[in-house]
Amino acid sequence: MNEIQRTESVKRSGLPIPGLYFILKVWCPGSSFSSPGSRRTDAASEYCSSFLRVIDMFPVVVVQGGAGHIPKERSENSRAGVCSAARAGYAVLRRGGSSMDAVVEAVSQLENNPFFNAGCGSVLNIRGEVEMDAIVMDGKRLDSGAVSAVRNIANPIQLARLVMDKTSHTCLTAEGANRFARSMGVSEVPPESLITDYSRMRWKENLAPGANPVDSQMGKMGTVGAVAVDAEGNVACATSTGGMLNKMEGRVGDTPCIGSGGFADNQVGAVSTTGHGESIVKVTLARLILFHVEQGQSVEAASDLGLAYMKSRVGGLGGVVTVDPQGHWATRFSTRQMAWAAAQKDTLHYGLYTGEHLTQSLGDPL
Amino acid sequence: MNEIQRTESVKRSGLPIPGLYFILKVWCPGSSFSSPGSRRTDAASEYCSSFLRVIDMFPVVVVQGGAGHIPKERSENSRAGVCSAARAGYAVLRRGGSSMDAVVEAVSQLENNPFFNAGCGSVLNIRGEVEMDAIVMDGKRLDSGAVSAVRNIANPIQLARLVMDKTSHTCLTAEGANRFARSMGVSEVPPESLITDYSRMRWKENLAPGANPVDSQMGKMGTVGAVAVDAEGNVACATSTGGMLNKMEGRVGDTPCIGSGGFADNQVGAVSTTGHGESIVKVTLARLILFHVEQGQSVEAASDLGLAYMKSRVGGLGGVVTVDPQGHWATRFSTRQMAWAAAQKDTLHYGLYTGEHLTQSLGDPL
Repeated sequence: MNEIQRTESVKRSGLPIPGLYFILKVWCPGSSFSSPGSRRTDAASEYCSSFLRVIDMFPVVVVQGGAGHIPKERSENSRAGVCSAARAGYAVLRRGGSSMDAVVEAVSQLENNPFFNAGCGSVLNIRGEVEMDAIVMDGKRLDSGAVSAVRNIANPIQLARLVMDKTSHTCLTAEGANRFARSMGVSEVPPESLITDYSRMRWKENLAPGANPVDSQMGKMGTVGAVAVDAEGNVACATSTGGMLNKMEGRVGDTPCIGSGGFADNQVGAVSTTGHGESIVKVTLARLILFHVEQGQSVEAASDLGLAYMKSRVGGLGGVVTVDPQGHWATRFSTRQMAWAAAQKDTLHYGLYTGEHLTQSLGDPL
Repeated sequence: MNEIQRTESVKRSGLPIPGLYFILKVWCPGSSFSSPGSRRTDAASEYCSSFLRVIDMFPVVVVQGGAGHIPKERSENSRAGVCSAARAGYAVLRRGGSSMDAVVEAVSQLENNPFFNAGCGSVLNIRGEVEMDAIVMDGKRLDSGAVSAVRNIANPIQLARLVMDKTSHTCLTAEGANRFARSMGVSEVPPESLITDYSRMRWKENLAPGANPVDSQMGKMGTVGAVAVDAEGNVACATSTGGMLNKMEGRVGDTPCIGSGGFADNQVGAVSTTGHGESIVKVTLARLILFHVEQGQSVEAASDLGLAYMKSRVGGLGGVVTVDPQGHWATRFSTRQMAWAAAQKDTLHYGLYTGEHLTQSLGDPL
């Protein structure tokens, strides 16, 4: 790591400065782009009197590797994993890729990394098997794709995208999802290839009488995900998970449930969530946060409001990564830790503990 | 039918009048109960200066039998079916049952009725099989239960309730849901027992080259559902469906997705949705409508705002039944028709076409 800087507290980063210009055909008064926090150049102000608005924005990728308590011996791998994923997602944007391309790339990296609960490294269900959920959503037309309880697929997030791109449906489940994968030429992998020694050890521990998989889960690691804004101002989200430790066969959590595991809307922003799925769905956490953004809250305040409501109303803990179309971003969590990383302009931001905000140089800005 | 009255237009019914009193421990200023439309007695006004509010309310069950275009030869059966379901749900409330008991009873009736697309009478997937989705949600603690792509179950709505009541999860899918059913002693039925000649005929029609199952679906019948408020002011929703005509195997629509197929929150209200599932999820229709109620809209205006947004933003049509905790209710749809019925006090209300509002006597009020 080079050029590391430690700051005192997590602050909202990615505030727009004159640089890239994004021209939006929107009415100025009352548009969703008039939320607090957006700034305009003088040139933009001129356009505003007509029906165009110019807004400074910078593309960004924000990644989360799961909210909970990460054991000390796994913390460096968690940090390295989210940083690598954010860099990979950002490299896609640099090459001119869309926000959807970027979040799928970032989450695929986390699925391939055995330190995270998604793809290889997923927790096991009560029968000792891997069943995975994933969702993508594109803010441009509110299109989404999801898979639930899918098996033997290395990258469920890519299969979720295929559901969005290649079918008229938004979610395929279980064997139907696998049948679709085969029809798309997505190769299946041996079940054991997705199971780590660590996952198997935790599964066995939680088979013991008196074990509490929910507490155990919250004490370790959750869902992974990413949100992004591309150079055209399109937002996207992607979330992927092995689910809940020792869950029942066929259990579907919040992840593939639109508005809970994630939501993306170019007029508001995008959110990817992690934490106790059964609490997240009770408050439709992703959609709730974006309702707060629509009401004029910053992405940071909206994320905090959503998490605080989930805690006070249903006692649930979790974490989120949130962006708005101008490239403002926030990483917030009510658990002890959440591995996160964000790439914007020339800087990689990352952290694990509350208040931790480290930075590295990314090299040339986008 | 006796005591039928025809009115000129659908009006919001169930306005509270002094009768039952419901004492809520809420702050008066800014509480979600201060939305327009709620009325207080003089006695209540006195309490309001302290921290109690007394609100008149009447229990209600509101049922929908699917939005779309119901062929003339099936319209009477549709009307009769929703009326029967609303009466059955209301009978549960009369016996002192909860709103959850009432919506499950009402939806079970519709699942057992071959004229509706849920349980027996479900549309078939591309392989000629029945795969069903269902959800329940209890507004008291935001608990929910759902099943998706479940087979060979006569009443998926009852299985969804068992998921809520008997597991730590909110959704079980496919074979995992069937395995859970067996563990609960829920008997499985032969696949053919859920398939009607009408369903098989429509499936075959839509296998033809050039067929458009989406258009065909919207032209016929959709998801069924119910919302209710019980004597304690608890709200609940239930939604059940065979899904989309000639859907892919494993397709999961909006129904089991919390916030889309339904939502219930004692602090706001409850909604059950029907229509084009892939549009409903894009706007999380049920949750969106309840956000409008939270903002002070009546259940009728909030329902219209949600449906209008779905139409303008993503071109989707559908229908909803909505209640608030005071027993205000609305049945609204953007399709040509939606079979609906509502039972409150001594009156059964029902209709099918836009603007149609018929009534029958229910006998003794609750």
